[in-house]
Amino acid sequence: MASHAESTARLRLGVVGLGRAFTLMLPTFLADRRVQLVGACDPREQARRQFERDFDAPAYETIEDLAADSNLDALYIASPHQFHAEHTRIAAANRKHVLVEKPMALSLDECDRMIADCADAGVKLIVGHCHSFDTPYLRTRELIGSGEFGAVKMIQALNYTDYLQRPRRPEELSTAEGGGAVFSQAAHQVDVVRLLAGSRATRVRAAVGNWDPARPTEGAYTATLWFGNGAFASITYNGYGYFDSDEWMDWVGEMGKPKNPETYGGARRLLQQVQTADEEARLKAEGTYGGTRYVSPSTADDATAFQHFGPIIVSCEGGDLRPMADAVMIYRPHSRDRMMLERPTVPRSEVIDELYLAQFYGVTPLHDGAWARDTLEICLAMLRSSEEQRDITLGVNVEDTQSCETP
Amino acid sequence: MASHAESTARLRLGVVGLGRAFTLMLPTFLADRRVQLVGACDPREQARRQFERDFDAPAYETIEDLAADSNLDALYIASPHQFHAEHTRIAAANRKHVLVEKPMALSLDECDRMIADCADAGVKLIVGHCHSFDTPYLRTRELIGSGEFGAVKMIQALNYTDYLQRPRRPEELSTAEGGGAVFSQAAHQVDVVRLLAGSRATRVRAAVGNWDPARPTEGAYTATLWFGNGAFASITYNGYGYFDSDEWMDWVGEMGKPKNPETYGGARRLLQQVQTADEEARLKAEGTYGGTRYVSPSTADDATAFQHFGPIIVSCEGGDLRPMADAVMIYRPHSRDRMMLERPTVPRSEVIDELYLAQFYGVTPLHDGAWARDTLEICLAMLRSSEEQRDITLGVNVEDTQSCETP
Repeated sequence: MASHAESTARLRLGVVGLGRAFTLMLPTFLADRRVQLVGACDPREQARRQFERDFDAPAYETIEDLAADSNLDALYIASPHQFHAEHTRIAAANRKHVLVEKPMALSLDECDRMIADCADAGVKLIVGHCHSFDTPYLRTRELIGSGEFGAVKMIQALNYTDYLQRPRRPEELSTAEGGGAVFSQAAHQVDVVRLLAGSRATRVRAAVGNWDPARPTEGAYTATLWFGNGAFASITYNGYGYFDSDEWMDWVGEMGKPKNPETYGGARRLLQQVQTADEEARLKAEGTYGGTRYVSPSTADDATAFQHFGPIIVSCEGGDLRPMADAVMIYRPHSRDRMMLERPTVPRSEVIDELYLAQFYGVTPLHDGAWARDTLEICLAMLRSSEEQRDITLGVNVEDTQSCETP
Repeated sequence: MASHAESTARLRLGVVGLGRAFTLMLPTFLADRRVQLVGACDPREQARRQFERDFDAPAYETIEDLAADSNLDALYIASPHQFHAEHTRIAAANRKHVLVEKPMALSLDECDRMIADCADAGVKLIVGHCHSFDTPYLRTRELIGSGEFGAVKMIQALNYTDYLQRPRRPEELSTAEGGGAVFSQAAHQVDVVRLLAGSRATRVRAAVGNWDPARPTEGAYTATLWFGNGAFASITYNGYGYFDSDEWMDWVGEMGKPKNPETYGGARRLLQQVQTADEEARLKAEGTYGGTRYVSPSTADDATAFQHFGPIIVSCEGGDLRPMADAVMIYRPHSRDRMMLERPTVPRSEVIDELYLAQFYGVTPLHDGAWARDTLEICLAMLRSSEEQRDITLGVNVEDTQSCETP
């Protein structure tokens, strides 16, 4: 892999899985000139054909064939969650750097193996995209780091979306297979809040909501996180698709684009057209890369703001900070300012920043395996806290924690 | 007392304490023709003189003299929190109905005594004003009761205010004396959330924030409440005065009046003028009834909307409901509606509704002693949960709950 780093400044990337995650990253790959897609693999033939047409590059049926291709530096692993660990192992065994989608994996054992596999092979491991890459959060973290506002004391994060109303593959509706709002959405929210708290989480108490019998996985949750520096955070997510908290983000959607509030209930209406799980999975596939309803991304210019994960308020000793899609609201003792952010040119270019710096300059990424493992630990602890109705202490062996039964 | 009920349709009320709480209720007493202020007591002479001038009615130095006055039906107990139990005892002993401000008292023992004292004397006990009287919450509760939306599953309530930046008496900054955001503000938020959940709270987990050394009491908190019907609620309060969540209530303030966001930081600026606790208490007194900076309430017409306690989202199985100051936002599967509310004519007339119906028609009030005791139990459990870092089970003897120590 390193043999090519000298001959070209571009990062030659192979894509593992041309599904929804890839669809969301594609605008980045198309617009960021530091990266070049040089191969892919996917079980769906139509997706492979489209990739070969679009990129004039080979698309394989299996990851083994892709990973063996000597023409690439790194693999972007965007396969279903339950394959992340095995696919990372294969990438590392072929000495390819790894960019793996969140959630990193479904268990801490898997995370540990992924970290070890990459370390043993001497390749970098980055977990993302995740919304904690988004510039508004990075800038907010820098403002906190300036010291002007004193210590972070309390964080409020909430997000009301139509997550559970969008077409899904069956395993996305099964928590045991990595589905549901905790694995898919807390992975973002917890990551963002950890970044802003700037300290290791020490305990968590959560309640999860699973109240649609037709979609029997977590659609909602609320949790409190405590951090080593004394800060605490309240995080809430509701993916059942009624109230939309983007109203509190100036009607800029998660992808950084203006949102029309009049399209209310669109995901639910689409979903009503299907009768079976197979039909639903097909509906999802149709809208994904290679599918009949798939629409190629237009130029990146239509993203007028940064991506985000809903309303967040960071309360410090001496002021509040509120990351928005195009600004950071700064509430000081005697003034309220809207610190405008640069207009994004390439969506999610922050992911390529980390990957590029890691691969070519040896910079340790923020979102490395150890970081992402800690986020997964919190997500797993949320499920367990809700189930066992008690605090879960973090950073200790699961077996070490005492059970607490109150009548 | 009952001897006068037949001779007049007006409720003859005596006021115990002409401080801040009375100041906030005065527009109601002036505008609601069902009530007549016929006496008062307060240790401050200037407040007594103003009352006598304004109402042509006696103002006593002590509650004993006021309670003995045979010309009144009920006492509105608006003295500092730590006197509520004793003043209720005196009112009941004189066979006067009791309207006592929230929080009902500082301990469950006090609540039990107040309930017993009023029951023994055959007088009604109502606790309020509290924001759970506000019409938008009562209407939301009615919508839930219609059954259209299915069961309540999750409630999110948050409120960011300048509560801790307003001028305070020293005891208001001492938790042991009933000061701080939990006693003063959770008393509202918990009450509203209980009303909307429509079920008895069974457990609570909280974290409180106390991070201004100059004002050493809780200024913030976050808590999760679990209810017997399976619903859970996340409630958050921040009274340190930076971000103002009335932005998410169409810039209508807690008192139902339009708020000018440009007055940002006003409470903090006012507070900066004082150097000592005495000066601060004097500043508060000056703005209170009888004080030099006190401004009499104008006509009730300037309240264009109902009072409220910040953004709240009630998530039901089949839709979300969001009580606003002048409407209830209804998010159904395929439509989003703004159900407008009648324009309020008298602020807080909902309090007089309950008092009047209880006194003259024997209707059991919603906000009776047992109801308010349960809210205080939750507030006390919040303080304890934060201190002991564990869930507190509600509705059982404190000594019955097991301690849970995790390393």
